[in-house]
Amino acid sequence: MKLIRDPVHGYIEVSDKFLQVISTPVFQRLRYVKQTGLAYMVYPGMNHTRFEHSLGVMYLAREFVKFIADNSKLDFVDEDYVELVALAGLLHDVGHMPFSHTFENALILAKHVYGMDVEEYGKKTHVRVGEKVVKDFLSHVIDKEFSKNMSDPVGFVIRVLEERPRTEEEKLANLVVSNFVDADRGDYLLRDSYYAGVTYGYFDVERLKRFLVYVDGKVAVISKAVPIVEQFLLARMYMFENVYFHSVVGLYNAIVSHAIVNLMEKGLRIPEDEKEFSVFMDDMVLSRLGDVDERLRNAVLFRKGFKRVKKDVTGKCLDLFSSRREEIYEKMREYKGLLIYHEFNDVPYYEEKDEALYVYDGGEVKKLTAISLIAKSLKEIRKAVIGYHETVEDKARELVQLLEECKTLGP
Amino acid sequence: MKLIRDPVHGYIEVSDKFLQVISTPVFQRLRYVKQTGLAYMVYPGMNHTRFEHSLGVMYLAREFVKFIADNSKLDFVDEDYVELVALAGLLHDVGHMPFSHTFENALILAKHVYGMDVEEYGKKTHVRVGEKVVKDFLSHVIDKEFSKNMSDPVGFVIRVLEERPRTEEEKLANLVVSNFVDADRGDYLLRDSYYAGVTYGYFDVERLKRFLVYVDGKVAVISKAVPIVEQFLLARMYMFENVYFHSVVGLYNAIVSHAIVNLMEKGLRIPEDEKEFSVFMDDMVLSRLGDVDERLRNAVLFRKGFKRVKKDVTGKCLDLFSSRREEIYEKMREYKGLLIYHEFNDVPYYEEKDEALYVYDGGEVKKLTAISLIAKSLKEIRKAVIGYHETVEDKARELVQLLEECKTLGP
Amino acid sequence: MKLIRDPVHGYIEVSDKFLQVISTPVFQRLRYVKQTGLAYMVYPGMNHTRFEHSLGVMYLAREFVKFIADNSKLDFVDEDYVELVALAGLLHDVGHMPFSHTFENALILAKHVYGMDVEEYGKKTHVRVGEKVVKDFLSHVIDKEFSKNMSDPVGFVIRVLEERPRTEEEKLANLVVSNFVDADRGDYLLRDSYYAGVTYGYFDVERLKRFLVYVDGKVAVISKAVPIVEQFLLARMYMFENVYFHSVVGLYNAIVSHAIVNLMEKGLRIPEDEKEFSVFMDDMVLSRLGDVDERLRNAVLFRKGFKRVKKDVTGKCLDLFSSRREEIYEKMREYKGLLIYHEFNDVPYYEEKDEALYVYDGGEVKKLTAISLIAKSLKEIRKAVIGYHETVEDKARELVQLLEECKTLGP
Amino acid sequence: MKLIRDPVHGYIEVSDKFLQVISTPVFQRLRYVKQTGLAYMVYPGMNHTRFEHSLGVMYLAREFVKFIADNSKLDFVDEDYVELVALAGLLHDVGHMPFSHTFENALILAKHVYGMDVEEYGKKTHVRVGEKVVKDFLSHVIDKEFSKNMSDPVGFVIRVLEERPRTEEEKLANLVVSNFVDADRGDYLLRDSYYAGVTYGYFDVERLKRFLVYVDGKVAVISKAVPIVEQFLLARMYMFENVYFHSVVGLYNAIVSHAIVNLMEKGLRIPEDEKEFSVFMDDMVLSRLGDVDERLRNAVLFRKGFKRVKKDVTGKCLDLFSSRREEIYEKMREYKGLLIYHEFNDVPYYEEKDEALYVYDGGEVKKLTAISLIAKSLKEIRKAVIGYHETVEDKARELVQLLEECKTLGP
Repeated sequence: MKLIRDPVHGYIEVSDKFLQVISTPVFQRLRYVKQTGLAYMVYPGMNHTRFEHSLGVMYLAREFVKFIADNSKLDFVDEDYVELVALAGLLHDVGHMPFSHTFENALILAKHVYGMDVEEYGKKTHVRVGEKVVKDFLSHVIDKEFSKNMSDPVGFVIRVLEERPRTEEEKLANLVVSNFVDADRGDYLLRDSYYAGVTYGYFDVERLKRFLVYVDGKVAVISKAVPIVEQFLLARMYMFENVYFHSVVGLYNAIVSHAIVNLMEKGLRIPEDEKEFSVFMDDMVLSRLGDVDERLRNAVLFRKGFKRVKKDVTGKCLDLFSSRREEIYEKMREYKGLLIYHEFNDVPYYEEKDEALYVYDGGEVKKLTAISLIAKSLKEIRKAVIGYHETVEDKARELVQLLEECKTLGP
Repeated sequence: MKLIRDPVHGYIEVSDKFLQVISTPVFQRLRYVKQTGLAYMVYPGMNHTRFEHSLGVMYLAREFVKFIADNSKLDFVDEDYVELVALAGLLHDVGHMPFSHTFENALILAKHVYGMDVEEYGKKTHVRVGEKVVKDFLSHVIDKEFSKNMSDPVGFVIRVLEERPRTEEEKLANLVVSNFVDADRGDYLLRDSYYAGVTYGYFDVERLKRFLVYVDGKVAVISKAVPIVEQFLLARMYMFENVYFHSVVGLYNAIVSHAIVNLMEKGLRIPEDEKEFSVFMDDMVLSRLGDVDERLRNAVLFRKGFKRVKKDVTGKCLDLFSSRREEIYEKMREYKGLLIYHEFNDVPYYEEKDEALYVYDGGEVKKLTAISLIAKSLKEIRKAVIGYHETVEDKARELVQLLEECKTLGP
Repeated sequence: MKLIRDPVHGYIEVSDKFLQVISTPVFQRLRYVKQTGLAYMVYPGMNHTRFEHSLGVMYLAREFVKFIADNSKLDFVDEDYVELVALAGLLHDVGHMPFSHTFENALILAKHVYGMDVEEYGKKTHVRVGEKVVKDFLSHVIDKEFSKNMSDPVGFVIRVLEERPRTEEEKLANLVVSNFVDADRGDYLLRDSYYAGVTYGYFDVERLKRFLVYVDGKVAVISKAVPIVEQFLLARMYMFENVYFHSVVGLYNAIVSHAIVNLMEKGLRIPEDEKEFSVFMDDMVLSRLGDVDERLRNAVLFRKGFKRVKKDVTGKCLDLFSSRREEIYEKMREYKGLLIYHEFNDVPYYEEKDEALYVYDGGEVKKLTAISLIAKSLKEIRKAVIGYHETVEDKARELVQLLEECKTLGP
Repeated sequence: MKLIRDPVHGYIEVSDKFLQVISTPVFQRLRYVKQTGLAYMVYPGMNHTRFEHSLGVMYLAREFVKFIADNSKLDFVDEDYVELVALAGLLHDVGHMPFSHTFENALILAKHVYGMDVEEYGKKTHVRVGEKVVKDFLSHVIDKEFSKNMSDPVGFVIRVLEERPRTEEEKLANLVVSNFVDADRGDYLLRDSYYAGVTYGYFDVERLKRFLVYVDGKVAVISKAVPIVEQFLLARMYMFENVYFHSVVGLYNAIVSHAIVNLMEKGLRIPEDEKEFSVFMDDMVLSRLGDVDERLRNAVLFRKGFKRVKKDVTGKCLDLFSSRREEIYEKMREYKGLLIYHEFNDVPYYEEKDEALYVYDGGEVKKLTAISLIAKSLKEIRKAVIGYHETVEDKARELVQLLEECKTLGP
């Protein structure tokens, strides 16, 4: 057993089984994939990586499922099951590519703006890659360490990652790892806040985990803890508004995305081979920047040369811009990333059929919006940022003009 | 100059002028008035007092007004003015009575439930008392220390406390000390969270203070900082839901209120005399508890003998109960506080004519609800708690029955 | 099971058994005994009480003994044993009198300066009182809740408090609760730092507890954690130097001690009776201050009227003053506390025969000073403060003169 | 003016002048130089960089010099001077090479173990490089922004960095930036603790900065703040013992040092050219690891293949090993870094002639050791770690044997 010091959760205990998984090159690789892409351009402390986030999710997944089991008297939860859930937590991001979601964005750009022939699954590409990593590169370790008491641990982990559970056990594991309130979000809100040096993402994790319950096949929060769930949803919304969707952060992530597309044009692909995949990391992109337009390179490395249009595109302006998206994208393509128009959007909370957070008061189970006015009032976050390299300022003028005309204060 | 170590704001600098005011017995008295009444029954760390809160408000008022002046280029803000605003902050709670708002509640009970002939001004009684304290007991010190460069500092402070500003200077001071987002609330959210050991009340004070501006006679927040203002309003709402309006906290504050009414029946009044007022503190009430019903005394001192009805009165139940309030109050009066029905209500944010938070984007000034969906969605917090001494359990049965019948999950 | 929110340790779980003990008036009374006497005069946040400290020691004792058992493979540690150790932790301060150690100091003064006939056991009086409280007032609850699986739980607790263990089980419990590095000190260092708003007392409790072991009848720290133990000893030393032995804190604790002696002269004694003992609290002293010299009363309540000699008595001056102690005490007695000479001393760490911290490296067990140069270098903290009421300034002149003559910079 | 969010100091204000310097590629480069080399192998949060540390030193240097000026009534301190000191703070590490001190260690190895012809100045190489960077790459920006009111700002900065002050002004600046208690150490203790998630390095910076004074050409601490200075020195010592000199951290820094030597053999040198120097960063080393022995590469990237001898070399063992250093180094050279013997040493505090911390009590100025027993007791930290790649285990056997024979518990 090993103790790892984590600034967010204190000591994280890692048993030998888990250490075997963590010690593989494909997992160690996560030490070199920044959690939040180029957010360090604005928040200089945000150099943290998917490695420590993954350890944190392992830790929280274990905590969540233990308290849920205690509160719900579940037969199927034993130490082996808890370990499998923790393993799914540990591996949920093992498919993340350089700069995390930014690389996914590059794939989208490559396909939809630059018309390249690449495979992409939006914000789920890392899940598809992760599935391959688990199957092809990690299954021998997982089988060796975890199959003694459980049949098909690899299948379990993959189905949880893909959110396609087949059994009650997998369903609960899935909800613990990926849900509206889950171990993944729980960890990144606390962790990203810590490294940014902001308080937006803090929520009362010690209380939250003690008030989760599994009832009627749903993860629910006990009714007196509804305010914590609201706090959690709002924490996430504020992190989006202030950090992940910070206009400058977005601008630089967009710039590096275009640089990555440049590299794709020169042959960069997601490696199929284990050894190559092990060094598919931020550094690999940075070290190849000599091959891309020097203006993109200097922007990515030295925050140099680009200007951001101070006013963001929001509200009805955004509708206008979105309606002319194809035309704008054509410009972006033409100027190869020296002109940037980047849209952000995230829905803080929505309910669909079964997909919802539930509230339990010892008797009934209700959807969250039936209880919480705050949850009900949460609206999609939408905006776009415009930026350009100073050498193409004149090309951006038209967009700036368009924005000036439609802009007013307020949503 | 003196440095006072404050767990919330770090070092607070106190100049000699202020030290003279702080050193008076009527101010030192605040060391013995707990900030949050009997909240320590539930949150054992909440033994903090109006003394340190007042220092904190002094500190934050100074910070707020300095940044506002910087951002707004105000002519009338000089060091003397900043000091006056800080002084108003320091003294804004100097009229608080034992157990703070709980004593105000006792006055309301005395008048409206027990039919006693006492003066009360709801949650503003402490302001009326404070006015007297400043005028009668502190004006000589204030005049001596602060009138050198400013005319009528006592009048300034009183008009700010009473929220009746006559000049632009007083108006701004008033808004800094008492507004929706102000030095008072700013301090108590951070401070009460710290001592409760919760995170609900934290907001980004370092950012907030840097984005305040005074424009068109209004305190406004610069538009990019709207999320902090939302965070602030929500922080306050969560502190109400989880701490100030915690059912057990409410129950014990109600119990001590009835005990205070008992003492009022035996002659206890707000002292007119300076020397007597200086010892009008929590201890004075506690040390007289030998004179009240032993069951109330044991409840207040030892958390002994009372039971709380586990379900709170909310939603339509609360409408029902409120409609029968007189009848319920008659029972309370009859059982002299051994049967408790206590209503809570607070409105997290509302706008009326000029009373609003404003948002400024360098051009327009708009009301907050025109910009923030969160602010718009905030609804009144309403609930009631029922409790009873175990010796009168049978008397409570009817209320419990009534509650059982109307109760469902949700708002 | 109940969750109590603690600012220092997060949630503290309290089982029903413990709740029965905590709910007694003699334990609830600790809510009204400040942990650090009049330290709030200097550090306004230090209003915390023996109540929360006792909960914290219960929590840490449980943690410590669990990790020790894990690391040492002890047969006799089962859940019942862990509970008894935690109970001893909970009750270790149940005999503390108003203002904690300050009352003990008053007893010393009463006997040795004022020549009164009172019983006192130095800094151990609270232990003797605690023994009585456990035996006379709490044994029925303890027996009822804890004697099912353990014989003589009351005896266990008392022998642990008195540090007179008879069995291996009691010996370990004793070392966990009262040792150089123990649950009591562990809690108060963290807690007092938190409320003072200082960092002096912080040490790495999460690491420390994981590296404790019980070997050869000794509690030892595993050798790689020696730096944490040094950090702990230094943390305690700094808290003494900066907080507990702060000259102004000492002065006011001395003043209230003399005021208490005044009250003893008027009949105040440690109550024998359970009901009276239950209200033997800070408030009881404060509410009787009307009976003592008004100058002492105003100093205690309002920090008014006293002056401190700015230079402390240290080094060879202290030797000189100590040699003339009787003469100085006679003055104090004569002026009834209006002239104060108060000595502080504490030994951060010393080893005697078996009394030592031990270090274990998997093979040998050695005393700490054989390993740690820091531990070896720790020297006694000694100093004295002189203070006087402004009405007797002339009486203090001789002492001040004496100090001026011997004073130089340095130890 | 720009606000940068820093997790350690809150908001850091950056004026336009400073922004010009920060925006140069040679400064932006520091974003890609990790502050603590490979410490992230053990403390996964330690991915922070020289970029944010440099901002922190700029901030603290400004704070320190302001308070010193206030406390010492210095004529020569005006806003321009404060800016120059802050600039020196900002630039003090601009010459750090990839992985910071680890690269310096590689240069030492290259010269003294591998016999290569490279220039090195021990732990001061980064200062020599920094001098060149300031002179050759930054002087035009510095002159443009800072020479308006000050003559020769570049010379000022360089002489401060080199610790060769010519004037009183430069002397004070030097002491603020590089001293026993200074802005550099102050920042890294707090910052490294934050990212490691440990408390060892915390000290009371708010208090320390308020009690510094410049007297008789010396920076002294006012006597009542001596405990903070002790806390500071101990904080640094604990950070060395637990973090910087953690055996595994040391082992991996040694491994990467050997890998760097490998690269030097293939031509890697400190770039002379500005453009090349701008990308002389951690990534550049990592991306070239394909050129070195695969076993070193896998160790550096994936923590793979190496074993550490569990017992460290200390005390008399270390004397023995040191006496046979040449022989051991020959082995290291022979196995090209697959066998590691790495010595650590640091002196927490020593006084030489004028080099000392001083204490001031309003009259005399004394050296710290004349006042503080703790400071006097601080001894050099010395130890060594042995490690080896599993393929050369047999080659390490002799060293392990040697260690087994001399090893006992204790210093």
